[in-house]
Amino acid sequence: MAFELVSSARCFGGEQRTLRHLSAVTGTPMRLAVFLPPQSSGQRCPMVIYLSGLTCTEDNVMAKAGAQRVAAELGLVFVAPDTSPRGDGVPDDAAWELGQGASYYLDARRMPWATHFRMESYLVDELLPMLCGALPVQASQVGLMGHSMGGHGALTLALRHPSKFRSVSALSPIVAPSQVPWGKKALEAYLGEDEDSWREHDACALLQRHRFDGTLRVDQGDADPFYQEQLQTWLLAQRCEEVGQAADIRIHAGYDHSYFFVASFIEEHLRHHAAALSTGRDKE
Amino acid sequence: MAFELVSSARCFGGEQRTLRHLSAVTGTPMRLAVFLPPQSSGQRCPMVIYLSGLTCTEDNVMAKAGAQRVAAELGLVFVAPDTSPRGDGVPDDAAWELGQGASYYLDARRMPWATHFRMESYLVDELLPMLCGALPVQASQVGLMGHSMGGHGALTLALRHPSKFRSVSALSPIVAPSQVPWGKKALEAYLGEDEDSWREHDACALLQRHRFDGTLRVDQGDADPFYQEQLQTWLLAQRCEEVGQAADIRIHAGYDHSYFFVASFIEEHLRHHAAALSTGRDKE
Repeated sequence: MAFELVSSARCFGGEQRTLRHLSAVTGTPMRLAVFLPPQSSGQRCPMVIYLSGLTCTEDNVMAKAGAQRVAAELGLVFVAPDTSPRGDGVPDDAAWELGQGASYYLDARRMPWATHFRMESYLVDELLPMLCGALPVQASQVGLMGHSMGGHGALTLALRHPSKFRSVSALSPIVAPSQVPWGKKALEAYLGEDEDSWREHDACALLQRHRFDGTLRVDQGDADPFYQEQLQTWLLAQRCEEVGQAADIRIHAGYDHSYFFVASFIEEHLRHHAAALSTGRDKE
Repeated sequence: MAFELVSSARCFGGEQRTLRHLSAVTGTPMRLAVFLPPQSSGQRCPMVIYLSGLTCTEDNVMAKAGAQRVAAELGLVFVAPDTSPRGDGVPDDAAWELGQGASYYLDARRMPWATHFRMESYLVDELLPMLCGALPVQASQVGLMGHSMGGHGALTLALRHPSKFRSVSALSPIVAPSQVPWGKKALEAYLGEDEDSWREHDACALLQRHRFDGTLRVDQGDADPFYQEQLQTWLLAQRCEEVGQAADIRIHAGYDHSYFFVASFIEEHLRHHAAALSTGRDKE
């Protein structure tokens, strides 16, 4: 299936696109947003995939984060998938932290979710090859980042699929979903009551057996209302220290969970990815 | 009346605020958004007021334009008022280009608009002094800019109140509302059928008698769907040339009317204002 162009706008000398395609994995139409930097008109560029947080679509980061300016400077293709399958035939939940807009980027095993909520397979096995085929990107130079639930997605997918992603970073991520209320609710709904299966989608738990061959860059605001109960960034810092995972985890005084925080620090994240992707030094 | 704090978030080392106050001029509560750069915690800073376009609120530019990064670097207080009075007791129109969200930044003379739609007096006589009193700003160093209908507002208010604003710029502005469909509809609704009164709120017409003591900086995309019929930027360029008004009017290939355009060029506008406001050379 090919991408269909929904909209296009010039932005910082490059092109901002919204695309749509019918996913064989989720069984639904899926939307995504893509920024093509000016450099990509003449050559293949590294790509950074950004996974968004609860309730977001592919649009939020493209409208609010200011990523395009930096991606245009650095020559990065910047891609934002949607946060879940959507539509009338797709199950949902009345709570905003479960169902549509809240996939947790895993393959659900329980009904009613298991039919469509297969975001891990969608992203890794379907969308990533499609992007590498359809866009001017270097398939060996792909970074993964995310915000909040998308930070969880970035950390877990990079640890689970280390051959696919050469760099990883997260803003305000959920780092230990099997230990916090949001995560427990979602993991039980999607995977069932076997808590061993939850730990396969928990960055702190995965780090007991997996390493990422590169530095985990993480930023977190200490005025984030979800910091103490849902995010608990210190658990990731402790685990990285215990197991010897390279990590650069920074706590920022006064910042909250909003896109004002994301916008303030996304430049540093994109520079982290560009450095790793252009030199390959994070993945020799 | 004092400002009430609706929300606050740290952003690029400064503070993003949404404020609300009861306006004596419009007779309604009014909202606005303010970015205070880090420099403003220790000193008074120049201020740029941004007037938004049709259908916008005080939120759009703050969420989408990436202005805070540049304002934080340059030490500019950046303020976005709402685009009209709003609320249950305020008249409106079914069309999106008239009524709430579409004030045209003038004082309406016809009913039902005349009671509340007094945005020119609100901005110049009420909000501006309030901002200078309540925020760490230099009252003599204020710039005015806007997008689309807000570009019209910036150009006309700067020409009508030259002692208040030392620098002016516009992105995708309506430059001759008395000659184009959007503008004719609004000016007739708000001012009545006397077309002489329309020209008091038309930048191209005002330039026949007024000059701005500084350069009008204007940027416009040539793929903007409103360019040919509603904006007609060339009318402003011709008028500035005829009357000897300093102007820097740039047409950009491929850009549309969206905030992807605004985001791409707002840095240049803020640097234009910062240069004029810090040196005062545009208003010796």
